[in-house]
Amino acid sequence: MIKDVFNNKKRESAEIGFGTKNYNESVRFLNQNGTVNVKRKVSDKHIGFDLYHWLLGINWIQFFLLVFVSYVVVNTLFAIIYFLIGADKFGGLALGNDSENFYQLFFFSAQTLTTVGYGHIFPNSVLISTVSSIESMLGLMGFALVTGILYGRFSKPKADLQYSTNGLIAPYKTISGFMFRVANKKQNELIETECQVILAINNTETKRRDFHFLDLERSKINLLPLTWTVVHPIDENSPLYGVKETDLNQRDAEFIILIKSITDTYFQTVYSRMSYKYSEMVWNAKFIPMRQKPHLDGSISINLNDIHTFEKMSGNL
Amino acid sequence: MIKDVFNNKKRESAEIGFGTKNYNESVRFLNQNGTVNVKRKVSDKHIGFDLYHWLLGINWIQFFLLVFVSYVVVNTLFAIIYFLIGADKFGGLALGNDSENFYQLFFFSAQTLTTVGYGHIFPNSVLISTVSSIESMLGLMGFALVTGILYGRFSKPKADLQYSTNGLIAPYKTISGFMFRVANKKQNELIETECQVILAINNTETKRRDFHFLDLERSKINLLPLTWTVVHPIDENSPLYGVKETDLNQRDAEFIILIKSITDTYFQTVYSRMSYKYSEMVWNAKFIPMRQKPHLDGSISINLNDIHTFEKMSGNL
Amino acid sequence: MIKDVFNNKKRESAEIGFGTKNYNESVRFLNQNGTVNVKRKVSDKHIGFDLYHWLLGINWIQFFLLVFVSYVVVNTLFAIIYFLIGADKFGGLALGNDSENFYQLFFFSAQTLTTVGYGHIFPNSVLISTVSSIESMLGLMGFALVTGILYGRFSKPKADLQYSTNGLIAPYKTISGFMFRVANKKQNELIETECQVILAINNTETKRRDFHFLDLERSKINLLPLTWTVVHPIDENSPLYGVKETDLNQRDAEFIILIKSITDTYFQTVYSRMSYKYSEMVWNAKFIPMRQKPHLDGSISINLNDIHTFEKMSGNL
Amino acid sequence: MIKDVFNNKKRESAEIGFGTKNYNESVRFLNQNGTVNVKRKVSDKHIGFDLYHWLLGINWIQFFLLVFVSYVVVNTLFAIIYFLIGADKFGGLALGNDSENFYQLFFFSAQTLTTVGYGHIFPNSVLISTVSSIESMLGLMGFALVTGILYGRFSKPKADLQYSTNGLIAPYKTISGFMFRVANKKQNELIETECQVILAINNTETKRRDFHFLDLERSKINLLPLTWTVVHPIDENSPLYGVKETDLNQRDAEFIILIKSITDTYFQTVYSRMSYKYSEMVWNAKFIPMRQKPHLDGSISINLNDIHTFEKMSGNL
Repeated sequence: MIKDVFNNKKRESAEIGFGTKNYNESVRFLNQNGTVNVKRKVSDKHIGFDLYHWLLGINWIQFFLLVFVSYVVVNTLFAIIYFLIGADKFGGLALGNDSENFYQLFFFSAQTLTTVGYGHIFPNSVLISTVSSIESMLGLMGFALVTGILYGRFSKPKADLQYSTNGLIAPYKTISGFMFRVANKKQNELIETECQVILAINNTETKRRDFHFLDLERSKINLLPLTWTVVHPIDENSPLYGVKETDLNQRDAEFIILIKSITDTYFQTVYSRMSYKYSEMVWNAKFIPMRQKPHLDGSISINLNDIHTFEKMSGNL
Repeated sequence: MIKDVFNNKKRESAEIGFGTKNYNESVRFLNQNGTVNVKRKVSDKHIGFDLYHWLLGINWIQFFLLVFVSYVVVNTLFAIIYFLIGADKFGGLALGNDSENFYQLFFFSAQTLTTVGYGHIFPNSVLISTVSSIESMLGLMGFALVTGILYGRFSKPKADLQYSTNGLIAPYKTISGFMFRVANKKQNELIETECQVILAINNTETKRRDFHFLDLERSKINLLPLTWTVVHPIDENSPLYGVKETDLNQRDAEFIILIKSITDTYFQTVYSRMSYKYSEMVWNAKFIPMRQKPHLDGSISINLNDIHTFEKMSGNL
Repeated sequence: MIKDVFNNKKRESAEIGFGTKNYNESVRFLNQNGTVNVKRKVSDKHIGFDLYHWLLGINWIQFFLLVFVSYVVVNTLFAIIYFLIGADKFGGLALGNDSENFYQLFFFSAQTLTTVGYGHIFPNSVLISTVSSIESMLGLMGFALVTGILYGRFSKPKADLQYSTNGLIAPYKTISGFMFRVANKKQNELIETECQVILAINNTETKRRDFHFLDLERSKINLLPLTWTVVHPIDENSPLYGVKETDLNQRDAEFIILIKSITDTYFQTVYSRMSYKYSEMVWNAKFIPMRQKPHLDGSISINLNDIHTFEKMSGNL
Repeated sequence: MIKDVFNNKKRESAEIGFGTKNYNESVRFLNQNGTVNVKRKVSDKHIGFDLYHWLLGINWIQFFLLVFVSYVVVNTLFAIIYFLIGADKFGGLALGNDSENFYQLFFFSAQTLTTVGYGHIFPNSVLISTVSSIESMLGLMGFALVTGILYGRFSKPKADLQYSTNGLIAPYKTISGFMFRVANKKQNELIETECQVILAINNTETKRRDFHFLDLERSKINLLPLTWTVVHPIDENSPLYGVKETDLNQRDAEFIILIKSITDTYFQTVYSRMSYKYSEMVWNAKFIPMRQKPHLDGSISINLNDIHTFEKMSGNL
């Protein structure tokens, strides 16, 4: 092959952080949910486990389950300590067999940890008093933690975007273009949304992975109340100019989408990432326009289910 | 009509996210309170209900009512559970008829949920102890939630701007201009306030909706201690040049205002939106200057009630 | 006077938000602590009282006093309600004369509000139980509020800058310059600090107030570990070129300082404002360089007390 | 020496905030952990002690130890107050000798501070009730504080970067370059990472300290999933052009690294600082490329332990 079919006329050695190594195998830099497909380790162990980051990331069912399990475990541990010190060191406890004593101590622990402290059972020795005073303090600390994490989970800014399942190579004006559609899945508004599209592709000449920034018809939009069809026109300056579907496949192409926006809940900047591998591209098809229904009150409504729908076109591009 | 009276000399196909569809009916993109007049749905259901966003948005009366009602409902539910297990499983409870027992269980629940736990009534069986230990934990979780939401409501950055009720087409220097006034309604200061004005209007030629960014005499202001009269001079580069009042009405004109600023409470960037429909425009009128009273201590005071007042002018523009 | 001595060669009709009205009296736009000297009112009442903003602004003594007084007041109110319902509706209360009953009810209220709930006194009627269950809920809500405000006070980003008491007109290279010094009063570091200086001055020709942005020798600094001497060189492009001390006084001059920076506690952008009125300017003096002591460990120390010190120079500028 | 070997062809009098004083001793502006090596004092006392900043900065063991010690100290203080008022003023307290009474009062205090309030011991006088109602309020305030600080510690944005131990002067294309490597130590992703490199060096001619901003081959990177080798090419425009290792040593050279990025936990901007003193520079060596292992699922993994490894090269630069 004398000349690489993909040309990058404007920039040299563009790179977005994934390195230019050609792995000679199909790699995917970004998963479809936007997470980065790289594992950083130290001595083969996963690095920098960040408890808070993890607690923010798990779903609500996992979170509440974790709180509940921790609650049971901590109460069991303190019940064991109280049991070992002696159930007879408590006032108000109806002494019985070991299991009867243990369950009373378990609930005494729960009443101490939550600081409900009914007091029908109460500590009646220095050691028990010491342990229970530590437990009530830990209880407050623990629920302080839960308060913080709950707030963190709620206030975490997030761009909840709906991307079309496929990227299309579709007719655009007199030429063709790379296109996908994106919309806001949440009730809040997104302000000053910006988009970057990067084509990652193996270079057969240099045996490296090239990164081509694709020029967009419009790269910034003031508001995103409806859907946005992001378009890269395939003109003579495009690295996709003259490229065929089989070229994308052979070169392990990945269209990396980076979106930056501002939510109007807290006016925070949010980022969203996505990628289309060559297998998720559809050639010679066009998106069916979204129905935008005007209402009598002057408002407009759309149905986000329609964002994915396209129609194949007859003929070749 | 051979040539469209509205010309857009500088930009082509400007768009701010509302699409260029001409609905052939009068639509309003932005409500006067700045909310976007578009409803996004999935299969005709409203999409992405965001509890936190909603809890931040309701007013204080609604919020406290919601907390109070939730408190009563949760206590009633737990009282029913305790009642079904049996009022005789409690210590310290003065057994009576069903309603007497129920009200005591209801208040035991309240004392458990808030962790006040007087203890004159206390759980006296494994099942009751289990339920009450879950209730006290849920109580702490619930109030953790309320703490977070209260903080979120308080710390939510907001541009609380007072816009003049009307936009004016007023004399400006030797020509005329589109004008409106804006001021800060809060005690804090707004820093580096920026304004964009966009005219949305039906194009009779292309049968689409055009968006014209209007050049402003001044688009950024360092501080906003007084009022700011935002002015778009209608010179020969303006799409409003030579346009008459009836043109605006026939074309379903909407002046969209986008303001960006920084509050000095938390130094956060805030955004405000507003729009003037053609029916809210007043032609050939000018704003009456705000009285700025200097005081003996060197300070200045203004009255925001005066922001709306204008006077009609004799003659034509 | 034929020509105004202050010339503004580069910008026309600069304004920073204070309007260009000449008040014919001495006004001060910015107080020395950076607060804006403008009062916005609605119908002569102060506008938009923002409780949260106020609670963040008061000092720590006022804040804790407020919490304490609220605590006493709320307990007194609830004690009155309990008293009116009847002290005999409580269990465990040692009935005595009215004042003995009242103080017990007051402390019952405190034990309910804080959810400590010892339980030696407990509600023994539906009405009392209802009121006390409301009180304990309000207690939790109140302390949720206090938690949020405490966090808000702590986490509020702030540029705590030390400005030199005086601005100087000092020799600078072969000409002279307007100068002041600024340093960080806190332990944290300030990053990417930017400064703007604006001269506000009455224009005797137009009878308006002019705003001149003054060019700085350096307007941005990467770090601010030591002090920064901000310098406006008075060259032929400066509005201060050829101006004398009496000119500044007669024209009610005010040098407005706007500083923007990033703290490295939370990496938040912070703003600081200050102004020097003509009476705070010293002519023909220069700052005495700060002693920067290097230590054996390679570190350097400075004494911020020295930031204000200058020496008068002999001769004229 | 007739001409300074370090030339700064593009900028004049660059400065980043450390001043240009030549201390005639070896100073280090930035410690290797990125803290600034300057001590600001007022009258020889350390200035502006910021409790919150300090509480965010200490490690977790110190933090929990501090909470625990405070808890014990506060309880001891209140126990002393209760003891001085009189142990006989309590209900339910088993009166014994002084130490027996004291330990019961200590635990009563703990039960009051945490609001667990079992109630087997309860206040039985106006004075005791007053003190204990203050204590329970302080308890809630204290734990409100701890909640806020815990959240602050967790949500504090941080760039946790791994820098290579050494900076290298390595071959780069046909010339040589200053290089170091950096990677993200945490699980989250860093977005839009920017880097600035400044060479601080004594100027033998002017007897001042010069700051040279070094041009980088690439100064911004979209994502940082792998490692980034930051390179300053030593071409004829570089102040390092023709410079030898001994020059750097004699001039007390320090390479100051300023990195700015955005974490995708909260999408907050974070800053990281580092410096290489001349003694941490290795001449004529090159970094060994990191192994990037592709996996069957298309993901890639790296080992951060390898970031420091370089090999010395034979011959001279």
